[in-house]
Amino acid sequence: MSAPEGEPIATSLDLDSARTLLRRTPDVLDALLRGLPDAWVRENEGPATWSSLDVVGHLIEAEETNWIPRLRHLLAHGESAAFPPFDRFGFAERLQGLTLPARLDLFRERRARSLEALARMGLAPGDVARRGRHPDFGPVTLGQLVATWAVHDLNHLGQIVDVLARQHTEAVGPWRAFLGILER
Amino acid sequence: MSAPEGEPIATSLDLDSARTLLRRTPDVLDALLRGLPDAWVRENEGPATWSSLDVVGHLIEAEETNWIPRLRHLLAHGESAAFPPFDRFGFAERLQGLTLPARLDLFRERRARSLEALARMGLAPGDVARRGRHPDFGPVTLGQLVATWAVHDLNHLGQIVDVLARQHTEAVGPWRAFLGILER
Repeated sequence: MSAPEGEPIATSLDLDSARTLLRRTPDVLDALLRGLPDAWVRENEGPATWSSLDVVGHLIEAEETNWIPRLRHLLAHGESAAFPPFDRFGFAERLQGLTLPARLDLFRERRARSLEALARMGLAPGDVARRGRHPDFGPVTLGQLVATWAVHDLNHLGQIVDVLARQHTEAVGPWRAFLGILER
Repeated sequence: MSAPEGEPIATSLDLDSARTLLRRTPDVLDALLRGLPDAWVRENEGPATWSSLDVVGHLIEAEETNWIPRLRHLLAHGESAAFPPFDRFGFAERLQGLTLPARLDLFRERRARSLEALARMGLAPGDVARRGRHPDFGPVTLGQLVATWAVHDLNHLGQIVDVLARQHTEAVGPWRAFLGILER
């Protein structure tokens, strides 16, 4: 099933496939994080890096101010106006004091709301080709935006797995050599 | 909460904490993989790399032939005899033909069985200092073995998230530049 030379097989991600990924992220985060010791979810990898608690906050912020607002912007303005910028650190102050369980609940609610909003847009498969304008990249498509939404989830799941694992680097002793996640 | 200079805070992982991680992995794998399109879970990153289906097979194999057998070996022989080697690729032929849902079910069952076996060992906190001998590394402790078991789960969860994300590298277009998981 692998493509030659390790190149990715898919050049686009249809809307239903993106939904298949987006729907499961609240459950993955719950299974991975809910009930872990507080110190573990607050641990980061040093100055200017994110803890698991931070990552969930960022995901909430993106749900509220990035994905659906940008989709609406693209549908309303096409390429004529760039998306408003997204503040990747906007969550930090606003969600301060919100515990991990509260963040997990809030993310689940926000994601459900986003998927309802996406459904209400009534997009057809061909709409993935519609174009908008990114403030840095210039022309982008609706399909790229939706694919990015889904891959962004995976990107941050990977980040959480990394920060959870690396807290225990010393604990594994010499096995560190066999555990790639501790070395990259 | 972060340690200075990004160094990991914990030099050991107590048995209860390890169990906290080990217990959740079947649910994380289910939330992440069950119901995904078959092509996605069979996709790998090129020759000699693993698909998500392969990773779950490897986790089953490790449950059956690595963790609990090595713990028993350590308790029985201490440093006097090295652990039998573990075949990291042993699953491939043996589990061939077993679908992803069947593998997820089997892993869940094997993990539950392992945790029961661990409980029956009746280990005390101080037992983490007991020593065994690794065929490559030489002296290792029981605590390092158990910590490795837990971090090995996270290592392979990260691998699954990577292979799922990188299938969609082309689909995100220019956003690739913002998604670290696609670049490492």
